[in-house]
Amino acid sequence: MESLQVIPVHGIGEVTPGDEIAALVADAAGAQGTPIEDRDCLVITQKIVSKAEHRLVPLDPDDPDARARLIESEAVRIVRRRGDLVIAETTHGFVCANAGIDLSNVDDGYAALLPVDSDRSAHHIRNALGARHGVDVAVIVSDTFGRPWRLGLTDVAIGVAGIAAVVDLRGTADDRGRILQVTEVAIADEIASAAELVMGKAAAVPAAIVRGLDSSWFGDGSAHDLVRNPQEDLFR
Amino acid sequence: MESLQVIPVHGIGEVTPGDEIAALVADAAGAQGTPIEDRDCLVITQKIVSKAEHRLVPLDPDDPDARARLIESEAVRIVRRRGDLVIAETTHGFVCANAGIDLSNVDDGYAALLPVDSDRSAHHIRNALGARHGVDVAVIVSDTFGRPWRLGLTDVAIGVAGIAAVVDLRGTADDRGRILQVTEVAIADEIASAAELVMGKAAAVPAAIVRGLDSSWFGDGSAHDLVRNPQEDLFR
Repeated sequence: MESLQVIPVHGIGEVTPGDEIAALVADAAGAQGTPIEDRDCLVITQKIVSKAEHRLVPLDPDDPDARARLIESEAVRIVRRRGDLVIAETTHGFVCANAGIDLSNVDDGYAALLPVDSDRSAHHIRNALGARHGVDVAVIVSDTFGRPWRLGLTDVAIGVAGIAAVVDLRGTADDRGRILQVTEVAIADEIASAAELVMGKAAAVPAAIVRGLDSSWFGDGSAHDLVRNPQEDLFR
Repeated sequence: MESLQVIPVHGIGEVTPGDEIAALVADAAGAQGTPIEDRDCLVITQKIVSKAEHRLVPLDPDDPDARARLIESEAVRIVRRRGDLVIAETTHGFVCANAGIDLSNVDDGYAALLPVDSDRSAHHIRNALGARHGVDVAVIVSDTFGRPWRLGLTDVAIGVAGIAAVVDLRGTADDRGRILQVTEVAIADEIASAAELVMGKAAAVPAAIVRGLDSSWFGDGSAHDLVRNPQEDLFR
């Protein structure tokens, strides 16, 4: 059976600014007996990527004005605002709460900003894994976003390297031999969501290996392919 | 390793009105050597559920007015409209293109409506698997929805039985022993997305087994838990 496997990577430990994520993940995967293999897709949470890339900024948890200013500084457009809730578009084009700023460690005195260029972050990890560990893998940097209309958060891809973000199946014959109408599947988001299922929020699992993906999906890809053109977007 | 497995179920074949989905999926899973086990979560696409439940309606592919009338009849609210594109709220509370009507087989002369009550559909399949095949499983009925802001479709849960739709991790200590702020994870949607990765659109795989989910997630759940209260929704 060509089944898919989603393997949590335990034991990565606390990440600090300047750490090399590729080495941390490769070592942890090896140590738990599931070394990274060619054609794996590695999903890494934004939180540790931001930490490694020095994207922590001091933020007083008791200063709502400072919080608001920080969000404004990371936003290119405020899409909606209600009370403390700010839905904003980031420089990357992502629309999400708080312009993607991770406030979950803010009682520490720090908030985590998104990577400056999360595709570049993904490429950096992919290239390091190739150069130092000899494996040809795809990398997705994931983050946890809310959605309109539906409750609950899901993980999506904010950085992509070595794999398509969206697979266009338009024009592929369906199971009855006819032409499908609209089937552009956001596989990078679906892979990020699959990975989240083994991560948990309290278990300190910031990475997962997704193994067994369709080999035709590997190749060029970018998280920009997941951003709807604002001119064609009915909701911003 | 407590890894997750996602196993496509091949060989289900064409589903016709009145078919018993539970039997078709259980037989096909057994025939391919991956019989359904306790604590599996079975993901079944809306398309075959609608077919089995007599939710096919005749629709002339060359009659756009008939198409518009059908969409209106399934919608309780039109959220946005641009040209042929209609984003509408269904009686279930789902917001999606064409009020959830599956037009991909319409050149056959038929469109598929959503199940009348897709939670009930999921419960029916779950109960039949328990009664006739002796397995205690969760069931998710999945459909393919678009999203604002992001390109590409992802699969989400429109019917849920035997598993939580949203897991509330608010108040669970994070990896540094502090209280998390907002972590309600839409696991049913993430499970549907994970399943989609092995289904493909052209490969006639309308079901998948997701094995290895957190055992604490099994229990009561409903796709209604995934519907944001319109009064609290900033985008409808």
